[in-house]
Amino acid sequence: MARINDDFQKLKAGYLFPEIGRRTREFSAKHPDADVIRLGIGDITLPLAPAVIEALCEAAVEMGRPEGVHGYGDDHGYGFLREAICEHDFAARGVAMDPDDVFVSDGSKQDSGNIQEIFGRDCRVLVTDPVYPVYVDTNVMAGRSGAGDEAGRYKGIQYLPATETNGFCPGPPDGPADLAYLCSPNNPTGAVASRENLAAWVEWALEHRAVILFDAAYDAFISDPALPRSIYEIDGARQCAIEMRSFSKRAGFTGVRCAYTVVPGELEGQNAAGEGVSLRSLWARRQATKFNEVPYVIQRAAAAVFSPEGAEQTSQQVAYYMENARRIREGLLEAGFRVFGGEHAPYIWMRTPEGLSSWDFFDELLGKAHIVGTPGSGFGPSGEGYFRLSAFNSTQNVDEAITRIRKAFSG
Amino acid sequence: MARINDDFQKLKAGYLFPEIGRRTREFSAKHPDADVIRLGIGDITLPLAPAVIEALCEAAVEMGRPEGVHGYGDDHGYGFLREAICEHDFAARGVAMDPDDVFVSDGSKQDSGNIQEIFGRDCRVLVTDPVYPVYVDTNVMAGRSGAGDEAGRYKGIQYLPATETNGFCPGPPDGPADLAYLCSPNNPTGAVASRENLAAWVEWALEHRAVILFDAAYDAFISDPALPRSIYEIDGARQCAIEMRSFSKRAGFTGVRCAYTVVPGELEGQNAAGEGVSLRSLWARRQATKFNEVPYVIQRAAAAVFSPEGAEQTSQQVAYYMENARRIREGLLEAGFRVFGGEHAPYIWMRTPEGLSSWDFFDELLGKAHIVGTPGSGFGPSGEGYFRLSAFNSTQNVDEAITRIRKAFSG
Repeated sequence: MARINDDFQKLKAGYLFPEIGRRTREFSAKHPDADVIRLGIGDITLPLAPAVIEALCEAAVEMGRPEGVHGYGDDHGYGFLREAICEHDFAARGVAMDPDDVFVSDGSKQDSGNIQEIFGRDCRVLVTDPVYPVYVDTNVMAGRSGAGDEAGRYKGIQYLPATETNGFCPGPPDGPADLAYLCSPNNPTGAVASRENLAAWVEWALEHRAVILFDAAYDAFISDPALPRSIYEIDGARQCAIEMRSFSKRAGFTGVRCAYTVVPGELEGQNAAGEGVSLRSLWARRQATKFNEVPYVIQRAAAAVFSPEGAEQTSQQVAYYMENARRIREGLLEAGFRVFGGEHAPYIWMRTPEGLSSWDFFDELLGKAHIVGTPGSGFGPSGEGYFRLSAFNSTQNVDEAITRIRKAFSG
Repeated sequence: MARINDDFQKLKAGYLFPEIGRRTREFSAKHPDADVIRLGIGDITLPLAPAVIEALCEAAVEMGRPEGVHGYGDDHGYGFLREAICEHDFAARGVAMDPDDVFVSDGSKQDSGNIQEIFGRDCRVLVTDPVYPVYVDTNVMAGRSGAGDEAGRYKGIQYLPATETNGFCPGPPDGPADLAYLCSPNNPTGAVASRENLAAWVEWALEHRAVILFDAAYDAFISDPALPRSIYEIDGARQCAIEMRSFSKRAGFTGVRCAYTVVPGELEGQNAAGEGVSLRSLWARRQATKFNEVPYVIQRAAAAVFSPEGAEQTSQQVAYYMENARRIREGLLEAGFRVFGGEHAPYIWMRTPEGLSSWDFFDELLGKAHIVGTPGSGFGPSGEGYFRLSAFNSTQNVDEAITRIRKAFSG
C-alpha cells in the first residue's frame, strides 16, 4: 500500500498567496467596478530588458544551426555564466570566487528548498521570524519538525523574533543550531543586515559548526555601498555559509528563471563517523541526480545582464522599483504610520494601525482603499500586527495607492 | 554541528556518465588523432526545429512589451500548454485528460527524482533491472534503502530482472511493493511494454494499492500504433499510476528543458490514519513550495511542438533518429551480434561478444573502433554483459560506426 509522506499533512493548508488571491477574487466579484491595486506579491512589472531579449533570441537562433546545437548543459551551468558571476558579483566587490563553487539553477526558491536534502534529518533548524515560508515548509516536509501550532510555529524549529527592538535583524542565539536560514535584504521586513550583524552570525556558526544558508536574492536593491551584499564579504564565511542569489528581481527574471547558489569548496559537514565531508560535492551529486541545468538560451540571457547594456538597463529597473519604494515609505510616514524597510529592499514593512491584526488590516485596506498587500502574520507569528507592501508596480499605481491610503486611514 | 545526510554516502561514487567521460578523455589524450564517435549518452544532435525557435523568439519579444510582461507563471504551467498536451498527447489517442492533472516541469529526470518526496519514507520501492539510475539514487538519498553491494544493488529495494527471457519487460512480482518504477520505451534496453504487460501491472497495483511511476519520456519513438504510448490507455491506470513525459527527445529539448507529469485527480495514497489522500494535491503542494514553473518562453516553445509545422518538423527529427536506430540494429545483426531494442526506442541493447563484461567491451570498442557506448552494467546488475548504443548522432557517423564495428569484431 502506497503510504504518503505524513509530514506534508503538518503543513498549514492555506499557503499565504492562494489565500490572498481567494479574498481578492471574492472582493472583486462583489465590487466589479473597483480598481484594485496589487502591492501584495513580489512579482516584477517592468518588461524584460532589451539586452536580455536580444541574447535570448540570438541563442535560440544559434540552436537552429548544426554548429549551434546545445543539448544537456555543462555541470552546474555553462562556464561563460559562472565566470561572469564570479567577475561581476564577487570580484567587483573584492571577493575572490571560484567558478567551481557556483551552481546555476532555476531559482532561489528551488535552491533554498532543496539545499536541506544534503543535511541530516536530525539537524536543528533555525529561522528568523517572520520568515520566507519556503525555508520552514521544506524542512517540515523533510521531517525536521513536529506539529504546527495555531500561531504558525512548528515544534522543533527554532524561531528568532525579528522585531523593532533588534531592527528586524536578530543576532545569533546563545545556544547552538545546525542550519540557520538568513535572508538579507529581508523578505518580508525589508531590513538589511549590517556587516557587524553578519560577522556575529559567522562567528556563531564557526563556534557551533553550524551552516548558514544565506539568501541574498534581493542584494541588488542595497543602495548603501558600505552594506554587505554577500556573506562572503565577511571573513570566515567560506567555512560556514552557503549563499543563494537570483536574477529574478535584479533583472526581471521571475518569468525567465535563473539563479545561482554558492557552495565554497572548503565548506564541510560531518558524517556519522565524525569525518568532514565536502558540502559542495554533496550538492553537486544532488544536482547531477535531480536537476538538468538551466536552458541554454536562459543562461545566455542571464549572462547578458552583466554586459554593459544589460547592466545599465537592469539597474534602471531596480532604480524604478526603489523610487516606488521611496514613495510608499515616505507617503506612509507622512500619513502617520510606523514604517520600516524600503531603503535597501523593494519591500515596505508597516505596523498595522489601531492594533488591527494583519488579516483584519488586509481586509480593511482592500475594502476601504482597494489595495492588496500581504499580511505580516502570513510570514510567521512575529509578523502579526505588521503588513508588507511591495514596490513592484507602476509609479502611477503606487502614487494612487498612497493617495487612497492617506484618504482612508488619516485622521 | 551540521550533520550531512549520510544516505548520500551509500551512493556509488562514480555516476555512470562521468566515468564514461573520464575513460574517453583518457583515450583521446593518448590517441589525439583518433576520430571518436559518441553513441554513449542519449543526447540529441539535430538543431532545434524552426517552429520552436520562432515561438521562443516571439515570446521573448513579447516579454519586452508592457502588455507582454510575464512574471511568476500559472500554477502547474500555463493553460495554453496544458490544454495542448491534453488535446494532442491524450485526446488524439482516445484518452480523456483533465488539464488540472497535468504539471508542466523542467524535466522528467527532475520529476522522477522528486516524486518520491510525497510518499512515506518506509514505502517499499520496486524497479526493473537494468534501471535508469535516477529512480534508485533518489530513493537511496531519501533513506529508503540500506547499503549497496558490489553488483550495484541496494538493500531494501526490490529489483525485477529484465532479461532476454521476458523480452526485457518483466511482469509484476508475486508479492507486494508500494512504489513501482516502470519505463517504456525503456532506457536502457529499448524494449517497449505491450498492452498486456501494462494491464498486468495495473491489475497488480490495484490489488496491492501500489502506485506505478510510469516514465514515458521516449513515447514518441513508438512506431507501432497498436502499442500503448501512455499507461492511461489501460483501464484502471488513473487509480494507480503517475506518468512522466518529456519534450527532450521528441523535440530536441535536452538543452531547452520542458516536460510534464500527470497525477490523476482520483489517485490516492494513504495517511497514517488509513485515510485516502489525493496525491495530486500533495504534488501540487510540493511543486508550489519547491518549484517556480518553466520559463514562459520555454512553455511557448513547447506549445509550438503541437502546431502543424512544429509537429511535422519534430516528427522528422524522430524519424531521422529512428533511421539511425534501424541502421545500427541491422548492421549489428548482420555482424552476428545479439541485438534488442531500436525499433520503438532510440536505444539499441546488445549482448557483448565472447562473454566480455560490459566495461571490458566498452574499453575494446573504444580501443579497436574508437566508439563510445554505455556499459549495460552501469544501469544495474542485470545489465552486465550488455551494452547500450544510442541513435542520437548523424547518420553518417552511425554508418561509419557500424563499418568500424564490423571490421573490428567480425570473423
